[in-house]
Amino acid sequence: MLYIGLDVGGMTAKAGVVNENGEILIKSSCLTGIERSFEAIVDDMAALCRRIVEELGVSMDEIGSIGVGIPGEQSPVTGLVAFCNNLGWRDVPLMDRLCTLLGKPVFVDNDANVAALAESMAGVSKDVNDSILITLGTGVGGGIVSNRRVRSGAHGVAGEVGHMVIVADGEPCNCGHRGCWEKYASATGIIRMGRALIERKPDCALALAVEGDISLVSAKHVIDLSKAGDADCTEIFDSYIHYLLIGLSNLVNIYDPEMIVLGGGVSYAGDYLLDRVRNGLADYVYCPSMSFAQIELAMLGNDAGIIGAAMLGRDA
Amino acid sequence: MLYIGLDVGGMTAKAGVVNENGEILIKSSCLTGIERSFEAIVDDMAALCRRIVEELGVSMDEIGSIGVGIPGEQSPVTGLVAFCNNLGWRDVPLMDRLCTLLGKPVFVDNDANVAALAESMAGVSKDVNDSILITLGTGVGGGIVSNRRVRSGAHGVAGEVGHMVIVADGEPCNCGHRGCWEKYASATGIIRMGRALIERKPDCALALAVEGDISLVSAKHVIDLSKAGDADCTEIFDSYIHYLLIGLSNLVNIYDPEMIVLGGGVSYAGDYLLDRVRNGLADYVYCPSMSFAQIELAMLGNDAGIIGAAMLGRDA
Repeated sequence: MLYIGLDVGGMTAKAGVVNENGEILIKSSCLTGIERSFEAIVDDMAALCRRIVEELGVSMDEIGSIGVGIPGEQSPVTGLVAFCNNLGWRDVPLMDRLCTLLGKPVFVDNDANVAALAESMAGVSKDVNDSILITLGTGVGGGIVSNRRVRSGAHGVAGEVGHMVIVADGEPCNCGHRGCWEKYASATGIIRMGRALIERKPDCALALAVEGDISLVSAKHVIDLSKAGDADCTEIFDSYIHYLLIGLSNLVNIYDPEMIVLGGGVSYAGDYLLDRVRNGLADYVYCPSMSFAQIELAMLGNDAGIIGAAMLGRDA
Repeated sequence: MLYIGLDVGGMTAKAGVVNENGEILIKSSCLTGIERSFEAIVDDMAALCRRIVEELGVSMDEIGSIGVGIPGEQSPVTGLVAFCNNLGWRDVPLMDRLCTLLGKPVFVDNDANVAALAESMAGVSKDVNDSILITLGTGVGGGIVSNRRVRSGAHGVAGEVGHMVIVADGEPCNCGHRGCWEKYASATGIIRMGRALIERKPDCALALAVEGDISLVSAKHVIDLSKAGDADCTEIFDSYIHYLLIGLSNLVNIYDPEMIVLGGGVSYAGDYLLDRVRNGLADYVYCPSMSFAQIELAMLGNDAGIIGAAMLGRDA
């Protein structure tokens, strides 16, 4: 049996046909866009699914189910997508509409949950029962996998680790609260600290790297300069690691998974990130004398969204 | 079949014989004490078990297993109690020794995990699959129950919610870290705020209530004065509720349980606590538009330790 995975973002939706082993056989994409209607976007997504199935040279009969990863949440009670901010969706019948258009069972879950499932089915956590994937990107997302199933929670809202408050009354977050982990442990957090550095010290190496234009500061600029030994950027990276480790140790203390997988843009820092996290975590967890979660980097990259979405229906 | 539950504390160990339904048929206690040897304490615990079985008029053949709740952690790898601070235990063979002395299977888990299991088997969360019990006492403990089993975690350290950091670089905690939830959400946190109030304002109502002796301040003093309308103590209680809700919303955002059960000394504030938590939580969780955990007060009180420990072996 084959499965279709859809990875829906604010600009594009990517779709792929995936086999039982989580391997992508074909993939393509279509535009989404917050300015377009829900119906038009879903129609295009359905057409994309039909097109890749045809291009692969298989029939829709061979497709077991459709899975969709969204940057939002579907309510298990109503079956509606309660919200999907990048597309302006509120209480939309994504599952029902795709099911009607394609005549297949449709499964919808949060994009970080889906990426966590992908790593657990076909990636770095595939030999592990309990894992948490953390995406360190624009925000911080999370997906909990227990016994190879996504833990969506009793009300479909589990895994929102980026909105765990680690600094009570701290930096204001887009979610309306303050001090959320993602304000400190995301790429955006590094950028904020980089911009503050330039304002404080306009002749620093980071300022030179972006020619004084703070709008150009990226996490990669800061991390690359830190790798090269720049003291200011190393201070930022040290601070980033401190906050990252606070959140990771919270997850260890609460949930104690076998493995924590780090994905998203910041994880492309590779061993420079991984070594710091692995070496530092024991200084943060409650029980350092006992074993705790192994830390690994995600390995499926951008394909995780398609693979994980496709796998939502495999064992359902 | 009957089960023995042992609830081990720094001063006493309580034991009870419990039936399949989690009802205590008989209970008694013996002394423990950090000054006594591990062997002497366990010998007394075994003798206590034999004595209550005899007093109940049943035979040891009717006992299926022994469960023990400890204020510490047993390593699932070594089978040893890695630590139990109140008794000074480090890597002691509690399970093996009790098993040898009593000839029954022995199960050991953390006291908060055991209390969570008790509420799930015979208490307020008995109709719920996924629950988290939070004990608001001297510290803040936690136990996660999933499908009526304690989630001890992949390495036996899950549920240490009291050491979730909610104020990065905040108040120093006994565990060696800073800003742990229990520094703010425990009875001890209320007492700290009460003492600071008296130092700041020596003629406040709380100071009068303890005749100026800050060593006498209890959480109950503060809560009772807040209930009676005292503005200073209400400010402390408001602050307490703020930090409590931050931690509770973190658990909702991460784990999304069906129910969160509040136990421990502070929970004796009853509806005064419960109403504030229930009414306030929506302002803290990430997805207030979706349903989230129901909040309830624990109902088994001090018996939870015996009942939950006994139940560790029931479905094992």
